[in-house]
Amino acid sequence: MTAQLRTDGSLAEAFQQVRDCTESLAAPLSAEDQQVQSMPDVSPTKWHRAHVTWFFETFVLKPFLDDYVTLDERYNYLYNSYYEAVGARHPRAERGMVTRPTADQVTSYRRFVDESMARLFSRGLHERPEVAELVVLGLHHEQQHQELLLMDAKHVLSLNHFDPAYRPSSPKASMSAPSLGWVDHPGGLAMVGALGEGFSFDNEGPRHEALIQPHRLCDRLVTCGEWLDFMADDGYHRAELWLSAGWHHSRAEGWDAPMYWSVGDDGWQVHTLNGVVPVDPNEPVVHVSYYEADAFARWAGYRLPTEFEWEVHAAAQEVAGNLLPAQELHPRAAESGPGLKQVFGDVWEWTASSYSPYPRFRPAEGAVGEYNGKFMVDQQVLRGGACVTPGGHIRATYRNFFPASSRWMFGGLRLADDRI
Amino acid sequence: MTAQLRTDGSLAEAFQQVRDCTESLAAPLSAEDQQVQSMPDVSPTKWHRAHVTWFFETFVLKPFLDDYVTLDERYNYLYNSYYEAVGARHPRAERGMVTRPTADQVTSYRRFVDESMARLFSRGLHERPEVAELVVLGLHHEQQHQELLLMDAKHVLSLNHFDPAYRPSSPKASMSAPSLGWVDHPGGLAMVGALGEGFSFDNEGPRHEALIQPHRLCDRLVTCGEWLDFMADDGYHRAELWLSAGWHHSRAEGWDAPMYWSVGDDGWQVHTLNGVVPVDPNEPVVHVSYYEADAFARWAGYRLPTEFEWEVHAAAQEVAGNLLPAQELHPRAAESGPGLKQVFGDVWEWTASSYSPYPRFRPAEGAVGEYNGKFMVDQQVLRGGACVTPGGHIRATYRNFFPASSRWMFGGLRLADDRI
Amino acid sequence: MTAQLRTDGSLAEAFQQVRDCTESLAAPLSAEDQQVQSMPDVSPTKWHRAHVTWFFETFVLKPFLDDYVTLDERYNYLYNSYYEAVGARHPRAERGMVTRPTADQVTSYRRFVDESMARLFSRGLHERPEVAELVVLGLHHEQQHQELLLMDAKHVLSLNHFDPAYRPSSPKASMSAPSLGWVDHPGGLAMVGALGEGFSFDNEGPRHEALIQPHRLCDRLVTCGEWLDFMADDGYHRAELWLSAGWHHSRAEGWDAPMYWSVGDDGWQVHTLNGVVPVDPNEPVVHVSYYEADAFARWAGYRLPTEFEWEVHAAAQEVAGNLLPAQELHPRAAESGPGLKQVFGDVWEWTASSYSPYPRFRPAEGAVGEYNGKFMVDQQVLRGGACVTPGGHIRATYRNFFPASSRWMFGGLRLADDRI
Amino acid sequence: MTAQLRTDGSLAEAFQQVRDCTESLAAPLSAEDQQVQSMPDVSPTKWHRAHVTWFFETFVLKPFLDDYVTLDERYNYLYNSYYEAVGARHPRAERGMVTRPTADQVTSYRRFVDESMARLFSRGLHERPEVAELVVLGLHHEQQHQELLLMDAKHVLSLNHFDPAYRPSSPKASMSAPSLGWVDHPGGLAMVGALGEGFSFDNEGPRHEALIQPHRLCDRLVTCGEWLDFMADDGYHRAELWLSAGWHHSRAEGWDAPMYWSVGDDGWQVHTLNGVVPVDPNEPVVHVSYYEADAFARWAGYRLPTEFEWEVHAAAQEVAGNLLPAQELHPRAAESGPGLKQVFGDVWEWTASSYSPYPRFRPAEGAVGEYNGKFMVDQQVLRGGACVTPGGHIRATYRNFFPASSRWMFGGLRLADDRI
Repeated sequence: MTAQLRTDGSLAEAFQQVRDCTESLAAPLSAEDQQVQSMPDVSPTKWHRAHVTWFFETFVLKPFLDDYVTLDERYNYLYNSYYEAVGARHPRAERGMVTRPTADQVTSYRRFVDESMARLFSRGLHERPEVAELVVLGLHHEQQHQELLLMDAKHVLSLNHFDPAYRPSSPKASMSAPSLGWVDHPGGLAMVGALGEGFSFDNEGPRHEALIQPHRLCDRLVTCGEWLDFMADDGYHRAELWLSAGWHHSRAEGWDAPMYWSVGDDGWQVHTLNGVVPVDPNEPVVHVSYYEADAFARWAGYRLPTEFEWEVHAAAQEVAGNLLPAQELHPRAAESGPGLKQVFGDVWEWTASSYSPYPRFRPAEGAVGEYNGKFMVDQQVLRGGACVTPGGHIRATYRNFFPASSRWMFGGLRLADDRI
Repeated sequence: MTAQLRTDGSLAEAFQQVRDCTESLAAPLSAEDQQVQSMPDVSPTKWHRAHVTWFFETFVLKPFLDDYVTLDERYNYLYNSYYEAVGARHPRAERGMVTRPTADQVTSYRRFVDESMARLFSRGLHERPEVAELVVLGLHHEQQHQELLLMDAKHVLSLNHFDPAYRPSSPKASMSAPSLGWVDHPGGLAMVGALGEGFSFDNEGPRHEALIQPHRLCDRLVTCGEWLDFMADDGYHRAELWLSAGWHHSRAEGWDAPMYWSVGDDGWQVHTLNGVVPVDPNEPVVHVSYYEADAFARWAGYRLPTEFEWEVHAAAQEVAGNLLPAQELHPRAAESGPGLKQVFGDVWEWTASSYSPYPRFRPAEGAVGEYNGKFMVDQQVLRGGACVTPGGHIRATYRNFFPASSRWMFGGLRLADDRI
Repeated sequence: MTAQLRTDGSLAEAFQQVRDCTESLAAPLSAEDQQVQSMPDVSPTKWHRAHVTWFFETFVLKPFLDDYVTLDERYNYLYNSYYEAVGARHPRAERGMVTRPTADQVTSYRRFVDESMARLFSRGLHERPEVAELVVLGLHHEQQHQELLLMDAKHVLSLNHFDPAYRPSSPKASMSAPSLGWVDHPGGLAMVGALGEGFSFDNEGPRHEALIQPHRLCDRLVTCGEWLDFMADDGYHRAELWLSAGWHHSRAEGWDAPMYWSVGDDGWQVHTLNGVVPVDPNEPVVHVSYYEADAFARWAGYRLPTEFEWEVHAAAQEVAGNLLPAQELHPRAAESGPGLKQVFGDVWEWTASSYSPYPRFRPAEGAVGEYNGKFMVDQQVLRGGACVTPGGHIRATYRNFFPASSRWMFGGLRLADDRI
Repeated sequence: MTAQLRTDGSLAEAFQQVRDCTESLAAPLSAEDQQVQSMPDVSPTKWHRAHVTWFFETFVLKPFLDDYVTLDERYNYLYNSYYEAVGARHPRAERGMVTRPTADQVTSYRRFVDESMARLFSRGLHERPEVAELVVLGLHHEQQHQELLLMDAKHVLSLNHFDPAYRPSSPKASMSAPSLGWVDHPGGLAMVGALGEGFSFDNEGPRHEALIQPHRLCDRLVTCGEWLDFMADDGYHRAELWLSAGWHHSRAEGWDAPMYWSVGDDGWQVHTLNGVVPVDPNEPVVHVSYYEADAFARWAGYRLPTEFEWEVHAAAQEVAGNLLPAQELHPRAAESGPGLKQVFGDVWEWTASSYSPYPRFRPAEGAVGEYNGKFMVDQQVLRGGACVTPGGHIRATYRNFFPASSRWMFGGLRLADDRI
């Protein structure tokens, strides 16, 4: 866990900071926006707001605050996401059908739990390590849902006929893409995975030795301009570039461009949280599936990195972890110097690695053990974090994972090469 | 059209009365309740509120109020229901995805159109018969949607885990079911269909001669108590009682009782607009499909009436039409005297008649001609009107129609017999 | 029942004639052709051959031939079609998965049952009226399946990449379409339904009085040439011509022409039992759904006849019933004289009537009562019989029925008009 | 490629041996059995027989036998499996609809191609290395389809109501399961992948270094008896044992036992190629998915091996490769001595490794390059070969792969452990 979360005084502050951030992210969304489940993968905004609250209630307040009385016992059914050990759940695909509690009632639920947590902090109960650990886990969990909230809200808003913006666009100076370079790695044995000093999820460990092949990584992300070249070269319609599953999926869905792209009066445009804007050829491409990323790499004559290739490069330039709100709409400081650029907080980078347990991985005991391990099949690992990922939520060992067909999270790519 | 709608002065009043009624029906529903499309047949409350408004805008204001400027041209895409002649439409099954305009913005749209209509009335434009006719059609159209709004809201609320009531229940004295009697008809030629004096929909005409077979009708509706007998006699699981399509549909859906029924701690209970209440054996059974109604009638040794058998009986006791708000939650005056009871405003009565055009039927010219005629296949006719049907919206010639599998509208049944 | 079936001596002969006809219809089909269920509505040829055999075994041999021992008791599970009263059945949609018994084993089963029936006839058991009635029902049942066998084989062969013909084409002189005339009817009360003298199915009765509206019928069927005009006038893409359900179904399926039509090097061609041939503009159009037939009639400014309008015309020129093999591939004698032409044995004519019970209809007792009544919803009546209908199987009162979307049976149309 | 295939003389012999083997495997199947596609993954027997023939025609005869004239050009459309580069194909899911060519016509096609290949051999064209390579590839390809043919035939026969056997059962002495032991491995760097001396598929290379963790493997497969213990301990209904995707899939499909198991009068029985027989607790369990195998391992307190763990053990006891017919129904020689037992030719062993390219993997140029590489996502690797795998088709580096939900191939498991 990060340093500032380990001091007693700041845990309560960090708690409030994360909780407030969630509310400010939800603020631009109407009660109607917060209600809708626009596809089965998406959850309603108000569900995210309630579910992260339920997490603190279930794993911290109920076990450790002895005079805690739940606001409404029925919420356990509604806001349990997938913890089989915690009992029956509302079916995931029907979250959008739950109109009551309303968004306002969810606000009340959040306040109720926040006040109870304040009581817990004021009694110093968080000085017990197992409580602190669960609070910190809950905060990282809520940060994950801050990102999901933005991913999902973007999708919900995209289905409106009127192209509403989540937030008004601020004029942005167009930047040129960084020039393209390569960073070599000689290969060999390297340690990967979390050290266990700061916070990390269970799937980031155990730290272990891995064999890295000699390779080089592109020092920046693939851009929209390069993606337009791929499209112009008929990349979406040449079977030889695609994995078989990707080809069939792509044809069945009629993919011809990244998700959220459409043709407007002035050429390709894209639905963003700032509304619909022209595609900027210098920006990293985003909202592509693994299938598309893999086909692009083959077209370009390269491949995708493995997750450990990525990690050994990234570890060299680890950012300082801290719990900041989502960076999405804020300009990022320019990176400079040698090594990879655009590593943290731009787009989630698809890797060639499927999501598997590390050697000797054991999930945690109890319900929180369901957090990561049970999803370790039929998913690909992504690394690096996107512009909607909260700042302190990114690290070199972080493993995100999605099915190869997923597009609505902020997935892009960086190229790798064996020829060094 | 009904009397009060035919005097110039009252058309503006009737307009306001119907429009206000819609808003008062929507008032108990939260912005979230108004957003959800709980199944493809259901439309969101706010969509109903906007669509009926669009009808006046499209068919009255745009053609006849020459300085009318639309509030938002894009609404034509969102709020056209099925009028192919009026242009492209938002896909029906995705109405629940439209979060903007919000319910509040729909309120503004309604006000804008109401004010424009007031201008039209103040200028006396409704004295032109073609305008008056379209306004009256629009009012009846809105009354239909008042009923749909309640049907749909009931379904939306039923999916909530907490059994919310649309409106608090008022204590109700349980009544005994009317005693059962039969009303004979000798058969012969009879005139059926609308006379064309008051308002009627195009599908109610032309009035024409029909041949009625000798028969008798039960003087009251089938009750929940009788339905419990059918269930106790394993009626839902005896193939010989069912139409083949009904049997397969019922087994695939796992039907064991009418829609909205469930087993509670004290036996069968039912989700209503007043919340969940015990099943009252004396009340008419409602929310059964044609398949179930037909199976029940076969089990009982009878059959369902044809629509003309029903009409010749009902014509004898036609109610005075008037434009009242939906009667659903109000007690009805007791009927007495000979003839059928529970004819108007209790439940929609399934008939054995499929929905077909009357001899020499011609739909109206233009878009409003799409109102009824194009649905004349694969549907069964229902007669009589339900407790959620606005009072002035019921007549003996009125033809409602739904697919045989539909349950969420308020469908029940009355028995018929050939043996007189 | 027809005359020759009523004399004792000829029942055995008629039995053998019908049974042989089935085998000769199956003869051109390979074991592979006989195996396939090309869509859920289709049954494999060998299933038809076995199922009609099972009918005699179940309803005649087992009850009436006291020393009858079944060849294989398990066949009752495989070859029961839909008789709920006769026990569990193999799922209809999985008939094509049953590779054993093979087609050859079905031949053995047929022989076994035929020999047993011969024993029954030789003992004179068919002199008991209830036995004769069931044998005659079984023969008409088998004739129905002869038609289904050809409908289904046509569909199976159509899915082959190589356009195989069921039977080699004999050169056919192209005929000009009969000139178009109209036959008036003044309307009034008329008796309809089967007299009950010869054989008829239960759904053709009871004979009863019906009210006919004044109308006229076209004296011939709609031709392929007229259908090409409808297509050229964009008939498949003009929503205003279509029933709403038809429009959506047609668009979802991408219908642009009748089933089995395709564009070849020399224009429109059609898959037939004789292979792929050019569309002949003078032939009656066939393999259109009710939705298409209804849209065509609306486009032409007419409508479809009701089933009783059709029947009162057809009754005037009833053909002599006899048990002939399917006429499909044989030239038909030319009709002449006044009245309708192309009434019997050309195409099944869609009517505007939904399939409902006649007044006072009661299904037969026992399993054979499941024959017709339980299908009386969501279907349209067709009249007249097609070129694949066995000759003796056609009569003026015969009611065929299919869902409005069905195309693979031989459905066409004749126009009707109110303006006389 | 194996030794005997590399001598000129024996290539023609090996060709005939493999081709004859295919026909003898198909011989017990009727024309009907050979027609059916019992699920989308299954191909009809006659399709397998024709497709492997098409492979020789397309990749050997057409390019290298200059006077070769194809028997029927249309077969290219029907029998191309998935080679995008070779043109349009019949849709995979509709292979069972193709009744023509019949099974007999496929026999003629096979003879025609065999005779043409004989001509090629007699002219010594196979002395050109690129020809020999393609012939050998074609033979290994046909051996793969021999196994698929048996997998698929087993599934087809299982859908018959009468439990037919592919081949009559020979009485079999029940054997006790080998006693359970563990074989340790200290971990470290090891070479894996094919050496490239004998034949191997492209996905088995390049040979490369891999890092093996210290571990031990169970020296025998998991047995049916152990699986019955898992079932008795409610293994199929305890969410905590399952991957999330496996849990949902298993519940949706209603899995309660391995595929082909059912409850008979005397307990659990299983459909096999020898008919339905009692489950033998001493035999290796087979026809379980990856999801089930993974859940079992978790229940037992162990895990599945990685593919390289398996390979380093198996390499120690590599079998002599030879081209024998499928071993399925023949008893296998008992293994003895130290090391793993039941390694080759019992069941395909699920590994914890997803199917990915080896470092620096490049698919072959041209259409044959589509053989393996394009399937490298969303699949798990299986190792070892099953009782239906042709004898000479097994090696320690062989990588089979299927989606985690697949059950109809012969998949079982061996346990691994980190604790040594």
